[in-house]
Parts: sequence; structure tokens; C-alpha cells
Amino acid sequence: MTRSSVPRSRGQLGGERVPGLRAVHELLTARTRRVRRLIVSTERDRSPLLDEILDLADDAGVSVERVDAERVRDEARVEAPQGVVALADPIGPARLDDLLAHPSAFLVALDGVTDPRNLGAVLRSAETAGATGAIVPRHRSALLSPAAVKAAAGAIEHIPIALVGGVPAALEQAARADVWTIGLDAAGDTAVFDVDLADRPLALVFGAEGAGLARLTRDRCDVVARIPMHGQLESLNVSAAAAVACFEIARRRAR
Amino acid sequence: MTRSSVPRSRGQLGGERVPGLRAVHELLTARTRRVRRLIVSTERDRSPLLDEILDLADDAGVSVERVDAERVRDEARVEAPQGVVALADPIGPARLDDLLAHPSAFLVALDGVTDPRNLGAVLRSAETAGATGAIVPRHRSALLSPAAVKAAAGAIEHIPIALVGGVPAALEQAARADVWTIGLDAAGDTAVFDVDLADRPLALVFGAEGAGLARLTRDRCDVVARIPMHGQLESLNVSAAAAVACFEIARRRAR
Repeated sequence: MTRSSVPRSRGQLGGERVPGLRAVHELLTARTRRVRRLIVSTERDRSPLLDEILDLADDAGVSVERVDAERVRDEARVEAPQGVVALADPIGPARLDDLLAHPSAFLVALDGVTDPRNLGAVLRSAETAGATGAIVPRHRSALLSPAAVKAAAGAIEHIPIALVGGVPAALEQAARADVWTIGLDAAGDTAVFDVDLADRPLALVFGAEGAGLARLTRDRCDVVARIPMHGQLESLNVSAAAAVACFEIARRRAR
Repeated sequence: MTRSSVPRSRGQLGGERVPGLRAVHELLTARTRRVRRLIVSTERDRSPLLDEILDLADDAGVSVERVDAERVRDEARVEAPQGVVALADPIGPARLDDLLAHPSAFLVALDGVTDPRNLGAVLRSAETAGATGAIVPRHRSALLSPAAVKAAAGAIEHIPIALVGGVPAALEQAARADVWTIGLDAAGDTAVFDVDLADRPLALVFGAEGAGLARLTRDRCDVVARIPMHGQLESLNVSAAAAVACFEIARRRAR
């Protein structure tokens, strides 16, 4: 999908502020959107990754501004930007229809994940597991704030993200497109390792931190699966659960 | 192991400040160490979890102080303590020998993980996967700072943690105790899903964020395994990698 095909939705996802070495490096390597400016701390020690970033910026004709570490933090709007932030065009959302039409669809839907670091971490794990897209609700959800972008470590340059009005309606649309929906919940009926759908087009569905899947979202899932717990604690963090579930799909698809 | 058997090492791991609803709830439920005081924000909305915390504190005779949200943040020393922090005795480290002697040892060793949130997240995932202990170096590593304790969400009340001088020496000691050591590294020879050691006593070894396993640590591992990457990014976050690897061990052990 070209960015010009979604003019109305530009900017709704965010993603303009890209802090952190990995996120900036991937932004400059992927070249999927325009980078307007690179801001680097004068107090930052040189590192191979920073050298590569400066070379990439030079190659792409991106202007580099050197300022003190505090100014970098102000621009980055995260606690620890690792001395570097890039300002870029926002991420253009993908169309849900396009994500659902992928013949090997492997999607992650996040229903009400509000911590931007969790959103970014889930996107990173999903991308590395080979997910083909993500579904995020427009409201009551973290979007691509600087903290999310940093935690995603470049995943947002690669994984298309659809913004939807609500996850339950998106799951109905998935069903009509023959995409199987697998909700992850501590109270799921089946262990995620026993779900035999990995080779079908599918979407993994995760709920909010703490609360888990909302009832309506849960009801719309074809299967509700749990990650078996073997200790004293009752639940995993949502980004850890996403890593486990995404790599279980990847493991099965690779066989 | 009783706490009194390790008097010299008390306090070295930290863990005295326990911020966040889940971490505090687990601290009060587990009753493995003395809780000196509970500090709750007057601006915090009631929630079922907070109500349970207040009941547990009442049952245990822990004094509750109500202060404004800013004062809670000051005491908690994390950004978002969710309106609650407990002050408790520090966590007493376990003895490495004891961890290695467990007949079904399932350990995680962290060599140079410096982000406390990553340390906490790894401990939480490991505990829920059934790990029997963790190994953390005394220097150049995150310890149980408030941010680590919050991210661990109560795991530190259950999973024994050994503090060691260096991870390579600890791995030598593991070898002498017939505990297999499996390093996780993006450049590992074998996919983690193909490592056939899950039923043996074992330790999973993770390196620093970014740099991965140090050479000496890597050389001391019996196997170096990778999590196969299926996207454009080159690596997972260490806490996501730990979640995937720990639950792969759990999956195999449960069969």
C-alpha cells in the first residue's frame, strides 16, 4: 500500500518522534518514510551503532543537529533516548482489509493495551516472529508515542498497523475473511501449545494489562487459549505473553 | 533456606521498596519477608486489587499511611507506582550451590542485564514458566531496584536469586554440578526449539541488552541457541527472548 492511498488517516498513529539507537538505525535503514531531522547529543560516546546512524543520515541527506543531552531528552520525550532522536513523517495506518487478505495472515490485535512500552514491545516481538500486521483500536489504547516507538526498536518501519474503531468489530470482519481469531487469556480453555491453527490465516488477540480480554472481544474469538502457568504468579506481562504466543505460531509454521 | 542462614548477604540484592499493585499484593500474600509499612495514595481510586491489599495489610498488622500521589512516587522511586508502595525487608540472596542442587533445576542466568525493568520482566516470565532460580552478577548488572521490583510483579517473593561474582565462574560451577548451560544468542548454532535438554537440570543464560553474550560466558555454555528470527529486525528484547526460551522449556517439560 502506498502512503498516498490513505491520505485521511495520516498522522493518527503517530510515530513522528523516533528515540533510541535501534529505532533510529532501523528508520534510516528501512527508508519507508521521510526523515526530517536527526538530533544527536554532544555528550554521547561514539559507538559502532551511532557511527552507522551518522553514515546513514549522511547518505540520505538528513540534517544532523548536535545539542546537549537534556535537549535530546526534551525532543525525544522519553527518559532514556540513548542520546539520539529522529523526527520523521508519521506512520501511515494500513487498511484492515489488506491485512486480512494476506494469504498467510499472522496478525496481532491489541484490545486496550495502554502502556506504550508494552505496545512497542509487542510490535517488536510480533515483527521478529514473522507477523504480517497489527490491529490497534483508535481509542483507549496506546498509539505510537515516543516510548512505544523506542520499545518497538524499528518494528514500526516494517509491520503494517491498522487502526480500528473497535476490536470486536474487527474480529467479525476477520471471520468474514476466513481469518481465525485466537484470544489469549489466563482463563482460556486450551493451552496455546495445543491450538492447531498455526498454518491457517490467523489473528492473535491480546487484552489490556491486568484486566485481560474484554467480554465482547473474548466472545468474538474462535478459540480462547491460555499460556500454562507453572509458578506461583497468576499471569504474564502482556508483552511476554505476546512473545510466547507469537513464537509458538512461528515455531509451528516453520515445521 | 531460611533467611537467617545468609546473614552476611542480606540487603545486597535490594528489593526493600515494592511499588505497584501486583508487586505489593504478592508481597503481602506470599508472606516470605517482613513488611514494615504500606503507603497508599489518597488520590488513588478504589479497585478490587487495592481493596484486597488493604485487607491483607490489615490481617498482617502492617501500618498503612495515606499520603498524596506525589509523596507515593517519592517513596516508590518509579514513575508510575499505581498509587501504592510497600517498604519491606530486603530479599535475601540464595546460595548458588542450593540452586544447582535442585533435582529439576531450571535456572536463568543474566549476564549484564542493566535495565531494571528487563531484569524484573525476566524474573516474572521465568517464575511463571516454573524456573527454580535465577543467577545475577553482583556488579555491572541491574539488581532489585524499585523499577525491577515493580516489573517483577511479585516474582521476587518466590524465585530464589543467587548473587555471583561473575557468570562465567558460576557456569563452571554449574557444569561440575551436572547442570547443562544453554546460552541464548542471535548467533547461536542451534534453534532453541531443537535443543533437546529440557528434561535435564539446566540453566538458560542471557547476555546484556544489545551486546548479547560476552565471549567468555558464551564459551562456558554447553550449547548456544538462537531464537529463529522471521522478520526484518535482527533481535528480540532480552525480556521477550527470556519469555520465549523459558516457555519452550516449560512446554517440553510438561509433555
